[in-house]
Amino acid sequence: MTITLLTDFGTSDYYLAAMKGVILSRSPQARLVDISHEISPQAILSGAYVLLGAYNWFPPGAIHLGVVDPGVGSSRRGVILRSHEYFFVGPDNGLFSLAVPEPVEAFEIAESRYLPNKISHTFHGRDIFAPVAAALSLGVNPQELGLPIRDPKRLPPLAEMAGSEIHSQIIHIDRFGNAITGIQVNLLHSEMLPASFRLRVGDHLIQFQKRFYAEEPTKPGRPFVIWGSLNFLEISITNGSAAEALGLSCGQAVILRLS
Amino acid sequence: MTITLLTDFGTSDYYLAAMKGVILSRSPQARLVDISHEISPQAILSGAYVLLGAYNWFPPGAIHLGVVDPGVGSSRRGVILRSHEYFFVGPDNGLFSLAVPEPVEAFEIAESRYLPNKISHTFHGRDIFAPVAAALSLGVNPQELGLPIRDPKRLPPLAEMAGSEIHSQIIHIDRFGNAITGIQVNLLHSEMLPASFRLRVGDHLIQFQKRFYAEEPTKPGRPFVIWGSLNFLEISITNGSAAEALGLSCGQAVILRLS
Amino acid sequence: MTITLLTDFGTSDYYLAAMKGVILSRSPQARLVDISHEISPQAILSGAYVLLGAYNWFPPGAIHLGVVDPGVGSSRRGVILRSHEYFFVGPDNGLFSLAVPEPVEAFEIAESRYLPNKISHTFHGRDIFAPVAAALSLGVNPQELGLPIRDPKRLPPLAEMAGSEIHSQIIHIDRFGNAITGIQVNLLHSEMLPASFRLRVGDHLIQFQKRFYAEEPTKPGRPFVIWGSLNFLEISITNGSAAEALGLSCGQAVILRLS
Repeated sequence: MTITLLTDFGTSDYYLAAMKGVILSRSPQARLVDISHEISPQAILSGAYVLLGAYNWFPPGAIHLGVVDPGVGSSRRGVILRSHEYFFVGPDNGLFSLAVPEPVEAFEIAESRYLPNKISHTFHGRDIFAPVAAALSLGVNPQELGLPIRDPKRLPPLAEMAGSEIHSQIIHIDRFGNAITGIQVNLLHSEMLPASFRLRVGDHLIQFQKRFYAEEPTKPGRPFVIWGSLNFLEISITNGSAAEALGLSCGQAVILRLS
Repeated sequence: MTITLLTDFGTSDYYLAAMKGVILSRSPQARLVDISHEISPQAILSGAYVLLGAYNWFPPGAIHLGVVDPGVGSSRRGVILRSHEYFFVGPDNGLFSLAVPEPVEAFEIAESRYLPNKISHTFHGRDIFAPVAAALSLGVNPQELGLPIRDPKRLPPLAEMAGSEIHSQIIHIDRFGNAITGIQVNLLHSEMLPASFRLRVGDHLIQFQKRFYAEEPTKPGRPFVIWGSLNFLEISITNGSAAEALGLSCGQAVILRLS
Repeated sequence: MTITLLTDFGTSDYYLAAMKGVILSRSPQARLVDISHEISPQAILSGAYVLLGAYNWFPPGAIHLGVVDPGVGSSRRGVILRSHEYFFVGPDNGLFSLAVPEPVEAFEIAESRYLPNKISHTFHGRDIFAPVAAALSLGVNPQELGLPIRDPKRLPPLAEMAGSEIHSQIIHIDRFGNAITGIQVNLLHSEMLPASFRLRVGDHLIQFQKRFYAEEPTKPGRPFVIWGSLNFLEISITNGSAAEALGLSCGQAVILRLS
């Protein structure tokens, strides 16, 4: 059984390896696949976005373990979400809400014989989520691991209409420096933005849209917007990093004026 | 069956995980091993060098999947190359030409029932190369996946003689800051450079060769050249990063004057 | 059989992949799990710390392969250490001495039919330690791989009492910028430091202890000390990177005055 792992732990510490050790000690046949561990610390939105791009390519039955968890140690719940094809295990903070906005079932993780006796306050990834994912991979029923809930946490809307404007933010910056905004194509009537559109981010005004990256004309250094492969509007620049050139960062506000 | 993966995708996005999900969905028993995903974006030479250092240590039959692909979306071909022991799958841009300069067979990847119906313009790694690698790992014959070709793309020579000079470039910078040049030992008559040699890179002139790293005398901070483990001439510095100390970068010209 | 890997090789070069290829060529069923490859170059203490946090979560029988090896090419020995549950394979430089201070058995790796004929001077990870780990994973007895020794190298004490002071150093900086010192809780009579304690590091004086991260009161930007999950005293800062804010680095001296 495949268990994927998505965290903001990085790979220079022991945290991730400890989680993997726990899983393999409990579920020796599990196949572990890293999604990413380079999510910006505590950037739930960015984690949700990366998971959205990866989760549905895995074989049905895969268990997606995600730990981007600014609330560890607080009273936030741990959850198991079930979609038609997958399980999701992690903190109940919206991390899974782009991938599985409407889970078929949801459970709040509770004490059970599958958890260790001693649970740290700071490392639920190792002490709670890894054991739960291991149990699921062995076929344990989620009812044995938690109690049904109806209200798993969802992220607030990534973008909101305000008259002829859409207010959103930068939710992720990819390796190539493209800045992904929270504006999804289904908010608009068309993939083509009106000719008069303006996207404002910081002090910059972007007024050019490309349909595909290689589309002409391209002035080096001129920023443009483009629908990315997950149908979010991205800010890009020809032959360069838009994030660097324009000084963009996760969480920064963007306003798209449509007319 | 082992499938190795080499890309310039980094590990902070969903790209790599999506490729792995595609492979595991199609070839559940495949064993995935990362070679590197930290190749500098679009640095084909650096990718070719890293693959050269890794590919031949894997068990016969391994499939080496490489995606460093500045031409994605253009008309560049996708290829399957077969050497005596391995398959190589990826863009036809020279990425494999250090590891397998003379493939036994080469195929241009064509439409087949092993590819998905919908293929994106920007993500051939996921939509073409991953399915092809998965099919090969299941024993599908490369003839079912593409058409034979005789001219897979090769990189231009990494170094050229010009009188008593060898003109080359920096092709890779390793984690320790050693700068690997494209000058291979087989270009020279001897592993020992003549006593009067001069290697020019940027404003720097290097006139000292070591046979092994610990060789005396070593002034801290003095750059030297040394044959690396893949028999390329490297620029190094004692107890430090030559790339940082000398301001070196991939693609930078180097000239070795032999007399 | 699980083989974990801990190195300072990074993941942008071929070194790690070559080691994995060697293992899989010799032990096709081995399960490889990365602990970390981002240990600071040649930082034995940091490697020892990360291994300490990870090793004991793996299933009994796991083989922990560690290569942080500033002495490669010198006369330092290669070792196999056996604890009650695990094997450790790597250079004899103290890298394993936090995880296994008192090995049940120790062996100096010697020539054997399990090593390749040609061994490089610079890459014992690939040419010695990987083949030895592969052999152990196949059930080869360590006596066939080396000669018993009684004095595997141990690290010098990480912290020393000097009157009412404890002298130590920063041994690791984690992804979140927490600076882990070499001061372990068992050096002290209590987890609570005396109210008058002072920790000096560089020009900074830290006089505040937290029992857990979320403990109030917390002034943003005010550094504090806290016992980390491995029971080492850490230097942290609320909502930020202590290492960055205070300019801390591995190896830097710290002095804890207790009264």
